[in-house]
Amino acid sequence: MTALPATTDAGTNRDDVRARAAAARAAQPALALAPSARKDEALRQAARALRGRQSAILAANAEDMARARESGSRGALLDRLALDAARVEAMACGLQAIADLPDPVGTVLASWTRPNGLRIARVRVPLGVVAIIYEARPNVTADAAALCLKAGNAAVLRCGSDSLASSTAILAALHEGLEHAGLDRAAVQLIASRNRADVARLLALDDLIDVVVPRGGRGLIERVKAESRIPVLAHLDGNCHVYVDGAADVAMAATIAFNAKLRRTGVCGAMETLLLDRRLPPEAMRAIVTPLLDAGCELRGDATSHALDARVRPVAPADWDTEYLDAILAVGVVDGVGAAIEHVNRHGSHHTDSIVTADERAAERFLAEVDSAIVLHNASTQFADGGAFGMGAEIGIATGRLHARGPVGVEQLTTFKYVVRGAGQVRP
Amino acid sequence: MTALPATTDAGTNRDDVRARAAAARAAQPALALAPSARKDEALRQAARALRGRQSAILAANAEDMARARESGSRGALLDRLALDAARVEAMACGLQAIADLPDPVGTVLASWTRPNGLRIARVRVPLGVVAIIYEARPNVTADAAALCLKAGNAAVLRCGSDSLASSTAILAALHEGLEHAGLDRAAVQLIASRNRADVARLLALDDLIDVVVPRGGRGLIERVKAESRIPVLAHLDGNCHVYVDGAADVAMAATIAFNAKLRRTGVCGAMETLLLDRRLPPEAMRAIVTPLLDAGCELRGDATSHALDARVRPVAPADWDTEYLDAILAVGVVDGVGAAIEHVNRHGSHHTDSIVTADERAAERFLAEVDSAIVLHNASTQFADGGAFGMGAEIGIATGRLHARGPVGVEQLTTFKYVVRGAGQVRP
Repeated sequence: MTALPATTDAGTNRDDVRARAAAARAAQPALALAPSARKDEALRQAARALRGRQSAILAANAEDMARARESGSRGALLDRLALDAARVEAMACGLQAIADLPDPVGTVLASWTRPNGLRIARVRVPLGVVAIIYEARPNVTADAAALCLKAGNAAVLRCGSDSLASSTAILAALHEGLEHAGLDRAAVQLIASRNRADVARLLALDDLIDVVVPRGGRGLIERVKAESRIPVLAHLDGNCHVYVDGAADVAMAATIAFNAKLRRTGVCGAMETLLLDRRLPPEAMRAIVTPLLDAGCELRGDATSHALDARVRPVAPADWDTEYLDAILAVGVVDGVGAAIEHVNRHGSHHTDSIVTADERAAERFLAEVDSAIVLHNASTQFADGGAFGMGAEIGIATGRLHARGPVGVEQLTTFKYVVRGAGQVRP
Repeated sequence: MTALPATTDAGTNRDDVRARAAAARAAQPALALAPSARKDEALRQAARALRGRQSAILAANAEDMARARESGSRGALLDRLALDAARVEAMACGLQAIADLPDPVGTVLASWTRPNGLRIARVRVPLGVVAIIYEARPNVTADAAALCLKAGNAAVLRCGSDSLASSTAILAALHEGLEHAGLDRAAVQLIASRNRADVARLLALDDLIDVVVPRGGRGLIERVKAESRIPVLAHLDGNCHVYVDGAADVAMAATIAFNAKLRRTGVCGAMETLLLDRRLPPEAMRAIVTPLLDAGCELRGDATSHALDARVRPVAPADWDTEYLDAILAVGVVDGVGAAIEHVNRHGSHHTDSIVTADERAAERFLAEVDSAIVLHNASTQFADGGAFGMGAEIGIATGRLHARGPVGVEQLTTFKYVVRGAGQVRP
């Protein structure tokens, strides 16, 4: 149990950021070796503490909300920041769900014996110390810390300044859970300041932190990628596509396109561009775009699309590269699956892309040639989610190619080591 | 087949570095989809071409050697640079061995079906475009390009200026192999200049290159890590330890220590510090250190070690953190396995560390608690090698924690994608 200076709204200083990262580093080896049952007990006790501290958490959140309103925050940000009894309960359930997941640490990923008798095993171990830098949503404090804890990682959290009071109250519940389970509360640290320079200080600590995960808007993620001396697991844009092939079941295509765009427009798996095969008859195209227009979605397309419905507005070249995260959709007409693949690989963000077709060959070609973390056939892009994949909670969808690609859940927050057992072997 | 300006000793320019990386990028999608048989044929044809071009390669190498001698290069560097018929044959055999490895691309790493009927598979795919920046050894040109090609990656090579003529001659053989197999020679590019600024140009191309692998001395690797905007798979120091526990078989410990230090002193898996349990009787300690001293190895230790043999010189604090890559060894006396683990985790480089003991509990504790890419029980640290692990050729031993840890072979040069097959599913 480390004694650190109490942090205040007035902010921390360089030494305090380093001291907190160092405390996490010091606490990590014991956490790496902690039995599954103890980690799970800490998570369940933290869930209990969240419920027990609900009124304190909501009072802290009211402070954050008042401050945000005073500084002129708008609706969407306020909604992300707001907590109520249901959202606190959802956080508690989230911790329990993570406790119920299998423990990845210690899993033997592969093992073999060499001709000289050496027995080699590749064994999952924690990544180490994970820093998470996030924006308004205070529930990330609980989710991210819990995923790290489950995988045996210490966590250094840096919340948005908007949610500082809420995050501090949630942290108290996490610490209570750790202590109840006999684990060191120092394994979860919060850089509790509103000083933006502390982010840069954190990103310089490559001797103490193993990986940094930014969660938030493009500005945050690009800043972290540019400044960090620590490897970054980044979740960049989801400029996702649905391509409706000439051989598609049109009713299925309409259902998938509607869901991919409008189920939730603000998630990274939302469709941002709809590609229609030129072979589709106009009535088929109309059957796909009309429900979207009728539901209030703005469509932007070329002359062919406009001819389908006068409500389709003109598309600009920048639209193909835009993640709207809103009820806006670019519509392109392409010459078959080859042109669709080319469009997706050029304009997409290598996140999640889907083909709708009854032609198995076209489907297999799209699945093989589209270079994205998730490729789907006859399914909505909104399935791009660790929960929907059956992987449990996630910290985001990685769009990089190294280490973790796609949903970053508990398993993706681990690495491995080689354990070699011999009987005196030396190398010739 | 791309037409690029011929490069000369006078160096390239910014546009040329970008043009070569762009040509590799453009060639990569076709390579990613190339059947295994075609990639293997390219490797076998390249091996044939290396043999056929042996005299041209040796003539080019003679140029490099003459230039290196003129500029005052010393013995070790000249030895790394030198080629002869046997070394060309070894390169050709290396290519054939890589052709004989299983193709990792397309392997289904995991697959499952969700309750809604979605079938999800995690499938290995190439990393993309890999840049390799290396120093004197010209054989890296063949090895690195072949490992990339096998895994479906395009390669952008940047050899040391010392080996430019040799590497260019080797590249011609690789290109001949690609063309014989009907693959695009643009998939292997060499930045053929002696201009050091070209390295910085290459490291800025994060829009064209997916990962960079530096191979060489600490100076090169630290420069690449500091300057790169592209993710780096780094192979840093191998400050490797052998800990001889009080319960060790002393003869086994002596054999392992001798092999770990002196089999080859210049490899990253060579032992640099020997830790002796204080419980070992002086005659046991002497049985371990005397053969090393007799073989001409310099030992540096504290008073306890000096008392064993007057040839042991005083150790300085910096010795514990030094990778000698030479016949020099730091010797420490520690209080049991706990102190050994603490020493290794503090001073080691998380590369490869070994315990010698007959005590299974001490062994399991060391294997679990030492935080290194490779941990061994009763075996020499010199096994730290992709070939010795049965993984085939490798590009190095990664000391980072993300993506690849330990030997980086063909499999580690891949990533994966999620392929999801549905029947019209949308997300509730």
